[in-house]
Amino acid sequence: VVVDFVSVDLGPYSIEILRGLVDHAGESGVEVTISTVPAAKLRERNREDWAAQLADGGKSGLVLLVEDVTPDQTAAIRERGIPVVVIDPLGPPPPGVVSIGATNWSGGKAATDHLIALGHTRIAFIGGPEPAEYSQARMHGYLAALMAHGLPAPAEYLEHGPFLTATGHEASGRLLDLRQPPTAIFATSDDTAVGVLRQAHNRGLRVPEDLSVVGFDNTYVSVQSVPNLTTVAQPLEEMGRMALRTVLRLLAGESLDSDHVELATRLMVRDSTTSPSNSILL
Amino acid sequence: VVVDFVSVDLGPYSIEILRGLVDHAGESGVEVTISTVPAAKLRERNREDWAAQLADGGKSGLVLLVEDVTPDQTAAIRERGIPVVVIDPLGPPPPGVVSIGATNWSGGKAATDHLIALGHTRIAFIGGPEPAEYSQARMHGYLAALMAHGLPAPAEYLEHGPFLTATGHEASGRLLDLRQPPTAIFATSDDTAVGVLRQAHNRGLRVPEDLSVVGFDNTYVSVQSVPNLTTVAQPLEEMGRMALRTVLRLLAGESLDSDHVELATRLMVRDSTTSPSNSILL
Repeated sequence: VVVDFVSVDLGPYSIEILRGLVDHAGESGVEVTISTVPAAKLRERNREDWAAQLADGGKSGLVLLVEDVTPDQTAAIRERGIPVVVIDPLGPPPPGVVSIGATNWSGGKAATDHLIALGHTRIAFIGGPEPAEYSQARMHGYLAALMAHGLPAPAEYLEHGPFLTATGHEASGRLLDLRQPPTAIFATSDDTAVGVLRQAHNRGLRVPEDLSVVGFDNTYVSVQSVPNLTTVAQPLEEMGRMALRTVLRLLAGESLDSDHVELATRLMVRDSTTSPSNSILL
Repeated sequence: VVVDFVSVDLGPYSIEILRGLVDHAGESGVEVTISTVPAAKLRERNREDWAAQLADGGKSGLVLLVEDVTPDQTAAIRERGIPVVVIDPLGPPPPGVVSIGATNWSGGKAATDHLIALGHTRIAFIGGPEPAEYSQARMHGYLAALMAHGLPAPAEYLEHGPFLTATGHEASGRLLDLRQPPTAIFATSDDTAVGVLRQAHNRGLRVPEDLSVVGFDNTYVSVQSVPNLTTVAQPLEEMGRMALRTVLRLLAGESLDSDHVELATRLMVRDSTTSPSNSILL
């Protein structure tokens, strides 16, 4: 049995998923091949290209970490009887396609609840790619927590952009330039949060005393940053394991309980959040 | 053609190598499989286990990122006619085994020359696993630079340990407790350097004004840290590409110019180094 892991890129996020997948492969005697496909290339490829590529490849199953899979693409794969599992899709995957994600809404809510419990009332949000389902879910978790506590979410407190350090750096620059700057920023990826740390550092703001920062993902980056990031852990290794396990179940002809499963996120409280009572931003 | 990438672990270092390897595989129509083998397990395995595993696997070639390969192990692989390339071995690889590394001595020297040019005279060193060839090479590059400028390298300025954040944190704690603390620390991995940043942060020391820090590797950790690390770049992607290219050349029956190649390291000057003239450690 050979399962192909297809990723848009290899980075701190995909490596965690890959680790879980490779671990489970070792335990179950499955072989994992790995290939990357740039996002732009993926969009170009039509249904026939994919099908041809997969037919030639002779893979038993596929795990895709590619964000935007079209119904045509997955249909072409499934026509050939090759089980496919999509991890963390940008939008709801095409009907009948199995996908695995994390509880993004709960994660967004947990991060914001934590900041509210510490006493913050001016909490800003830096989201990911705006159209993505998971971005929407995180933002609405944030809004739900604020709403439950009667706290405002002014429009200028909502920022969006790709999950990059530069996004966090630029967005937090705008936020900190506001007449009423936030005392806490929930950045929805660890990379984004690191950009916020850098912006704070450049302005001589102390994290967490002046500005609390929460990330999302719990990649390697979150325990390498100074200070260590409070972050919402995605169960990335477990998502990788489950993706492979699901491909194997499909190969064995088992039926699944659900086409989409979300594994639980978990708040990891570290050193980048505290009470705002000593913040110079107040 | 199927080439297996065998790594002790998947982390920031191996992911860079893997990316280069997978890129080149995509270009040359080669399939890459990936497996991890814990270092302890690798030591247990005797010659027969390896050979059996590889014979069953039916791989065309192997790229090993496993540090300690025994002559028995590589002999068993080569007996079966399977080309093998070792990346960054702990010691000189067994005769006849092809290996790829980086110019560790030059890298160590370049890092230290940079600190000397900035005006530092108290420069400490935190090395990797002491017996490793690459650790020795980096240390002797450091010593060579000091010696060329008539600068001292007191024994208490030399620290060693595994390439972990904890190593950097603890070793720099000892260094900064010295009666004459260093004003610059050359840590020989980015992870180690991040531990130094954390120690400085805990003590309220500014980097780079009070303490300059240089890392090694140029993994993504070095551009995620605050401040960004000045570091010695290892050409990790290129090492991955070259490993695969070399396996393919061996498969094609070509002869190699050399059994061991070192690709050039390059100093990346970023934000963690400056002149010591304003250091409170002086």
